[in-house]
Amino acid sequence: MDSEAQAALARLLRATRVAALGTLRGGAPLVSLVLYLPEDDFSAFVLHVSRLAWHTQDMERDARVSLAIVEADDGRADPQTLQRVSLRGSVERVTSAGGEYARLRQRWLERYPESAQTFELADFAFWKFTPADARFVAGFGRTYNLSPAELRGASGRV
Amino acid sequence: MDSEAQAALARLLRATRVAALGTLRGGAPLVSLVLYLPEDDFSAFVLHVSRLAWHTQDMERDARVSLAIVEADDGRADPQTLQRVSLRGSVERVTSAGGEYARLRQRWLERYPESAQTFELADFAFWKFTPADARFVAGFGRTYNLSPAELRGASGRV
Repeated sequence: MDSEAQAALARLLRATRVAALGTLRGGAPLVSLVLYLPEDDFSAFVLHVSRLAWHTQDMERDARVSLAIVEADDGRADPQTLQRVSLRGSVERVTSAGGEYARLRQRWLERYPESAQTFELADFAFWKFTPADARFVAGFGRTYNLSPAELRGASGRV
Repeated sequence: MDSEAQAALARLLRATRVAALGTLRGGAPLVSLVLYLPEDDFSAFVLHVSRLAWHTQDMERDARVSLAIVEADDGRADPQTLQRVSLRGSVERVTSAGGEYARLRQRWLERYPESAQTFELADFAFWKFTPADARFVAGFGRTYNLSPAELRGASGRV
């Protein structure tokens, strides 16, 4: 992947605010919407979800998930050219105490100030998604299969 | 679901052009981007995909999929309020001959004129997704679980 594609990937992962989360529910896929926060080096992607939500119940049962992050449709002639990345990996719940929780809470609120009320609710928790691989479609015919190391390598590009 | 929510759902399903498709790959979820065409009565949602794509290979092995259709992010203060629907169901490949294929091809090209070239390629085919249930999030705290009949019931609203 050249530096131009790396920069496009970094912009996509940082500028997009919503992801499609795929979980396993009764052995079949369920795709739903989540907000996410990328770690600066793209080593992980943080979710803040309610255990009342189906996807959270799914993640408690099976940690294998996928995240798709897609450029918002701007009404262009061909939506097939929208940039997107599909990540596959696993999730782990973050303990709601200690410095790591406080760090994520501060960064989450910087990115999503309107979500402050969710931190008053006992059913919300942070989950950390660690990608095992990534598939980046930068445009028609420009698809890159990336390892976690290659994903991290794109994080320094702007 | 009241008529206002029905109209919002109908607008969302007709105005949105991209969906997040969740398939099973090696027993784990994979989420990727597809264009889609809703049937007028929302009884099915049509995909036009290449068998070179991972999601198509997945659908050939296991027909259980999920589609998430999400309002495009308009930069609003709270992206958690974006309207979205999660559909779960199964897919079936459409035979590439006969009147049904011709009807879908015409409707697809009306909706996605830029995709004409994909009809020149032998690896593309129509797949029909039939929903078994739907979960519509119309806004904060306004979530509706819908049967296929209730989904069809929304199709007459504008």
